[in-house]
Amino acid sequence: MKVLITTSSFGDEGIQTLQKSGIEVVNNPYGRKITQTEAVSLLKDVDGVIAGLEYYDYTLLSETKLKVISRCGSGLSNIDLHAARELEISVYNTPNGPTQSVAELTVGCLLALIRDVPRINNLMHANKWEKFTGHLLKDMKVLLIGYGRIGKRVASILDAIGAKIFIYDPFISDNDIPDNIKKIELIDGLRMADVISLHSSGEDLIIGQKEFNLMKRGIYILNVARGGLIDEDALEKSLNSGQVAGAWLDTFEKEPYTGNLSKYNQVILTPHIGSYTIEGRNKMELDSVENLINGFRL
Amino acid sequence: MKVLITTSSFGDEGIQTLQKSGIEVVNNPYGRKITQTEAVSLLKDVDGVIAGLEYYDYTLLSETKLKVISRCGSGLSNIDLHAARELEISVYNTPNGPTQSVAELTVGCLLALIRDVPRINNLMHANKWEKFTGHLLKDMKVLLIGYGRIGKRVASILDAIGAKIFIYDPFISDNDIPDNIKKIELIDGLRMADVISLHSSGEDLIIGQKEFNLMKRGIYILNVARGGLIDEDALEKSLNSGQVAGAWLDTFEKEPYTGNLSKYNQVILTPHIGSYTIEGRNKMELDSVENLINGFRL
Repeated sequence: MKVLITTSSFGDEGIQTLQKSGIEVVNNPYGRKITQTEAVSLLKDVDGVIAGLEYYDYTLLSETKLKVISRCGSGLSNIDLHAARELEISVYNTPNGPTQSVAELTVGCLLALIRDVPRINNLMHANKWEKFTGHLLKDMKVLLIGYGRIGKRVASILDAIGAKIFIYDPFISDNDIPDNIKKIELIDGLRMADVISLHSSGEDLIIGQKEFNLMKRGIYILNVARGGLIDEDALEKSLNSGQVAGAWLDTFEKEPYTGNLSKYNQVILTPHIGSYTIEGRNKMELDSVENLINGFRL
Repeated sequence: MKVLITTSSFGDEGIQTLQKSGIEVVNNPYGRKITQTEAVSLLKDVDGVIAGLEYYDYTLLSETKLKVISRCGSGLSNIDLHAARELEISVYNTPNGPTQSVAELTVGCLLALIRDVPRINNLMHANKWEKFTGHLLKDMKVLLIGYGRIGKRVASILDAIGAKIFIYDPFISDNDIPDNIKKIELIDGLRMADVISLHSSGEDLIIGQKEFNLMKRGIYILNVARGGLIDEDALEKSLNSGQVAGAWLDTFEKEPYTGNLSKYNQVILTPHIGSYTIEGRNKMELDSVENLINGFRL
């Protein structure tokens, strides 16, 4: 069996596990995100793939002899699952890999944001000692939009800190929610929240100008889910008006991000690194290797 | 009764509560930290004081008619408690006021530090999209030096995140420690920790060059307690050698801080703002007002 790894880097432990199972490993030869053309060419003669975010459509899949696609990551929107089923290609992902990494970054950026740490830190690095009084997270009303794996993990940490947690998630029934968390309609959540954090899996706009207008003045907005969920122009307007006190974005409508929000020092920006921890990445790689080996065995 | 408020600012709610109790309030007329000379002069004819960090020694106290000193804050090192007792002046503080504010900033700065958020955020604000792989706090070994109110609060949040918590505190007995936390000798803690955070109340050096040399390479150090607890020169050497991967300091040997650590972008610096939240400050002010009123009643 021959397996291609398309991700720009992959740890030795995972590669060795594959090789010990008698699998021939072909690494991404470019050491960077591969283009779609490169992916098509490299996929021609392999039996399995540890896959990144390159697209797997019907045409590509039907021209390969792939038996298993094992995503190193949780999203599957780059794979035509219907085509894969028709062509009898097994598809796996690693849904738990990024959960803790994303949740920790979310909590860290929220706590840093409400205390203005990045700005104060820059002042200190310029030898300017300027005290700033921030806010406590305890007793703040936090609306989590999306209560999947990541939303749940964020909620449990915020609960330990003492925040009041509300969730909007149309796919969750009341029975799945612990007593300390309240399910709420989106419009009510937008109106009463002090903090809104996006953890949903869809791709459609959730927070546009209309939604910003409903929010309390001085709200904090966090988006580590998908860029398209927030209208970035509307966010900029709401920062200018003071409606939004601060924001943290890890995902953007267009990446790499080059937009206007970089002009606002009350906005923390990170380059889509929610899942980027050595320990979380390692777990995700080993999970994807295990999935691939199991996929061949079936 | 006439009461002086020496802090540079004080909220209306506290002032009104004092006035409703029939107390005449004299505000700090300078709107900034008062000098010792100014304090002495203002304290001459008041019965009580809501006190900041100006010094109350025997000479000053014996020249006033003070009945109550109510610190708006937890530290009492600026008050000669022996002299106050001899002169029958009641002294109060607000030990719970800063706890949550300090704990939240500690957790936020730790999570930001191990993901390099301030540096990445600055790159993004310069339109540079550079991904960086950080570390997970989950499963890290965190040594808390000092397990008082703040250390306990930090421990409970870190526990919810999934860190492994060890404490060094010679004044705490094993019975006072929950099952998920291990008490440890300082030397053992220094050797095995991935993160060390200072939450002790003393003034003496705890972390000097000798202690840095015992630590694991790549350690993260946090100090929100007292500046003198860490040797800043030894910290700089340990950053240069790579022994210390990153640090967050909120307190310094000499404040305002103007030292070399501002040259290191793996160091987060904040200007002694651990207790600086609107909500925490408000609670502290109202607690100090309550203490002062109760003090007059006794």
